[in-house]
Amino acid sequence: EHMFFLELHCRCIQTESKPIGRHIEKVELILPNSHCEETEIIATLKRTGEEVCLNPEAPWVKKVINKIMSSRS
Amino acid sequence: EHMFFLELHCRCIQTESKPIGRHIEKVELILPNSHCEETEIIATLKRTGEEVCLNPEAPWVKKVINKIMSSRS
Repeated sequence: EHMFFLELHCRCIQTESKPIGRHIEKVELILPNSHCEETEIIATLKRTGEEVCLNPEAPWVKKVINKIMSSRS
Repeated sequence: EHMFFLELHCRCIQTESKPIGRHIEKVELILPNSHCEETEIIATLKRTGEEVCLNPEAPWVKKVINKIMSSRS
């Protein structure tokens, strides 16, 4: 039968501390909502498609997002 | 049978010009890849869950991303 998993909590339990910017394929920025009061950032890695949580406060994470947003990403 | 749709091109055809920052639930930043040479930004809207493409160059989009990344988002 179809497993239906309702996210009633934050999706991230721990965040990746090592700067993995160059392995990132895409990044999802999730705003605080009724289930989770923090902004969460989930990156999908290139080769494996693995999903990794990033710390929105970490300087290297802010740099990665800024680099993506600067046109010559 | 299961429809399998392979993204062999950019996902965004047009982008939303109206600033819709306050309706955004989450934002996906997709880096240039073998299928699409541009950075693409896809926002999911709160109420409807609708997906909308945003222009990475638009000032209001850059402001939304910066606001999300500043801790007090």
